[in-house]
Amino acid sequence: MNFSLRARVVAEFLGTAFLVAAVVGSGIMAERLSGGNTAIALLANTIATGAALVALLLTVGPISGAHLNPVVSLADALNGGLLWREVWPYILAQLTGGFAGTVLANAMFSLPLITLSRHVRSGPAQFLSECVATFGLLSVIRGCSRSRPNAVPFAVASYIVAAYWFTASTSFANPAVTIARSFSDTFAGIRLADVPLFVAAQFVGGLSAGWLFHRLRPVPVN
Amino acid sequence: MNFSLRARVVAEFLGTAFLVAAVVGSGIMAERLSGGNTAIALLANTIATGAALVALLLTVGPISGAHLNPVVSLADALNGGLLWREVWPYILAQLTGGFAGTVLANAMFSLPLITLSRHVRSGPAQFLSECVATFGLLSVIRGCSRSRPNAVPFAVASYIVAAYWFTASTSFANPAVTIARSFSDTFAGIRLADVPLFVAAQFVGGLSAGWLFHRLRPVPVN
Amino acid sequence: MNFSLRARVVAEFLGTAFLVAAVVGSGIMAERLSGGNTAIALLANTIATGAALVALLLTVGPISGAHLNPVVSLADALNGGLLWREVWPYILAQLTGGFAGTVLANAMFSLPLITLSRHVRSGPAQFLSECVATFGLLSVIRGCSRSRPNAVPFAVASYIVAAYWFTASTSFANPAVTIARSFSDTFAGIRLADVPLFVAAQFVGGLSAGWLFHRLRPVPVN
Amino acid sequence: MNFSLRARVVAEFLGTAFLVAAVVGSGIMAERLSGGNTAIALLANTIATGAALVALLLTVGPISGAHLNPVVSLADALNGGLLWREVWPYILAQLTGGFAGTVLANAMFSLPLITLSRHVRSGPAQFLSECVATFGLLSVIRGCSRSRPNAVPFAVASYIVAAYWFTASTSFANPAVTIARSFSDTFAGIRLADVPLFVAAQFVGGLSAGWLFHRLRPVPVN
Repeated sequence: MNFSLRARVVAEFLGTAFLVAAVVGSGIMAERLSGGNTAIALLANTIATGAALVALLLTVGPISGAHLNPVVSLADALNGGLLWREVWPYILAQLTGGFAGTVLANAMFSLPLITLSRHVRSGPAQFLSECVATFGLLSVIRGCSRSRPNAVPFAVASYIVAAYWFTASTSFANPAVTIARSFSDTFAGIRLADVPLFVAAQFVGGLSAGWLFHRLRPVPVN
Repeated sequence: MNFSLRARVVAEFLGTAFLVAAVVGSGIMAERLSGGNTAIALLANTIATGAALVALLLTVGPISGAHLNPVVSLADALNGGLLWREVWPYILAQLTGGFAGTVLANAMFSLPLITLSRHVRSGPAQFLSECVATFGLLSVIRGCSRSRPNAVPFAVASYIVAAYWFTASTSFANPAVTIARSFSDTFAGIRLADVPLFVAAQFVGGLSAGWLFHRLRPVPVN
Repeated sequence: MNFSLRARVVAEFLGTAFLVAAVVGSGIMAERLSGGNTAIALLANTIATGAALVALLLTVGPISGAHLNPVVSLADALNGGLLWREVWPYILAQLTGGFAGTVLANAMFSLPLITLSRHVRSGPAQFLSECVATFGLLSVIRGCSRSRPNAVPFAVASYIVAAYWFTASTSFANPAVTIARSFSDTFAGIRLADVPLFVAAQFVGGLSAGWLFHRLRPVPVN
Repeated sequence: MNFSLRARVVAEFLGTAFLVAAVVGSGIMAERLSGGNTAIALLANTIATGAALVALLLTVGPISGAHLNPVVSLADALNGGLLWREVWPYILAQLTGGFAGTVLANAMFSLPLITLSRHVRSGPAQFLSECVATFGLLSVIRGCSRSRPNAVPFAVASYIVAAYWFTASTSFANPAVTIARSFSDTFAGIRLADVPLFVAAQFVGGLSAGWLFHRLRPVPVN
């Protein structure tokens, strides 16, 4: 199917908004209900995020490709997928969609629409974690999409579920989502001052994976 | 395959009955076992509901389309799917099926067959939550079914799993299920007086998504 | 693919053994680790059982059909699937396999190989629960297998995950598994005296679903 | 698709590294957050491991077959799949990848890059558990891959999720992962002295399953 750029940009906006609303909203719900047990809160947050990803990638994927992530759009353009003149509209939709998602989550839980997060997430271990998280995410997208495109939604959602737990940063792995999460002072938040390092790590990790999978191509049969 | 209206109505009745029995029954079990930790109770309730949806949509889908939800039937008729003269039989089956499901759940757990819930769920945040929840549900159904109909059961179940956590109302998103849940004074219940606002929000959100996805159509290739 | 009766019986034996080992073994592990929180124990037991079902049905299904359950074998024979002279070998393999699974689970957890369970599970609510549980199980198998046979493993596993929570009996839904579970005095056990009622309820519920889905057939297109 | 041995070895290295990082890293996170409730910690560890397996097998499978496990590579060679001269490169990549994964996990969580685990895992019940775990794993791989190769990632991940709970050893079932886990003194660790018994049990169980499924072949149609 072929969709106009306008339709695809709307899809990226809505998809990123729902993704961030799912991450932030489920974090609020989980924190409220878990009575201080962070493992249970993160488990609920993880399951909600993974399930949201399955639903959103299946819904938005056929329209816009369901990037929902500036690193993915950039890597796709570098790989000859997305046209360069479409990269900025995609990223703009993701950034504004993500922001709308945070506002929506705050509103659904009767919180001020915007509050700056005070959740400190800094240091070399966090930087390394985000590099690894995004390297893995782009590896999964690239490796799976060229051989089994229909399985990508399940592969990506599964990866993020795992990475919430195996990285010390709980795997943001997405600059639009990272920025959006700084506007809710709740479970999933991140201090605005820590955003740049996260975003830098995400581009380093993601583009490295793009380069690697460019190298790991199939060869002509001998 | 082609099924008679009678067979499809039986399927909608049974499907909605099992769906409500799963939601209400797992809520009862979860509340009994969780020792007051609401996060664990909701987690169990979520997993049971999502798993029930996968099973029911795969089972009932090939017979009746597995609407199990008046908003879905109405949106389908508006979209030219379900015949208008079949809408009321479908909705009637869903309403009676949902009621039967609550009675069944109460019976399986040795409770009075009907008790009016005292669980207050009201206010603008709840209204907004149900709008968002049902907007998302119909978006997932519409977006996924036109490109990957076989994946709809997994997309819908995943969406509801996420929405249980990212909306403040735990995402009822279904008028038949909402009404049915008012007849069990247990974990998943809702006070009868709060039902109308939920149902109104569900139609607003669901039909908005139907309109949006009508706009977000593919365009002829240039 | 075509397998000899001998190969299919071996597959039913092994499949039922692993299924029961998964149910009983994960119950032991869950009870040991959960520090008295039954909701967490049942959640772990549920996830392990559902995951085991996915794996076993995908592995054994292509060989023997992966009945792993006398009700399923009987219903299949009534429906013209399994040959009548193969029903007893199947059921015998399931019964002995289930018993072997309990012994294996007990052995892996350093318990006496056989201990009679003292877990009381009786009364009309339990009977109703097992009727409903097995009615639903056979509905899922019958409804899903005729239209989407490849999805049956996921539908069945999802159904059992839900039914562990929405029935008061935690949904045994399988006579071979029920008998086997009476030989381990642990989390998943059942008192031998309560087994006959469970088995009766399972046949009543399962065969009712078989009859219903025989009625709910597609009709010739007008 | 056809990949060079070099590309496949890189894929095995990376896949095993991410698998071990997921197992060890999620164990560290789970232990830190769970406040001493081991059931919740193991549940998080289980979900992260299963999800990582889905993502990794879908990503690496099309390149190298995603063995990520010396027992799988050896059984595949015995079955006429992997060439014998490729077995050692595969196993070397798995061993070094696993080690790299432990170092990476330790680094992401700001721990010393290598610490010897003091987690005692010994005795006949552990040996039996690892035999059973690996017998089951190879059965799932063999049984599922010949009839439904596309479902193998889901079957394997589901199996491991179940086996984490139904075996007393939490189902290592992989010599490369076992060795790697001895270098992190955290939740998922194993004392180096206990590694040989685990590895021996894994080869016994895995190769037995290979032999069994070699016997359980389809027969020509009569």
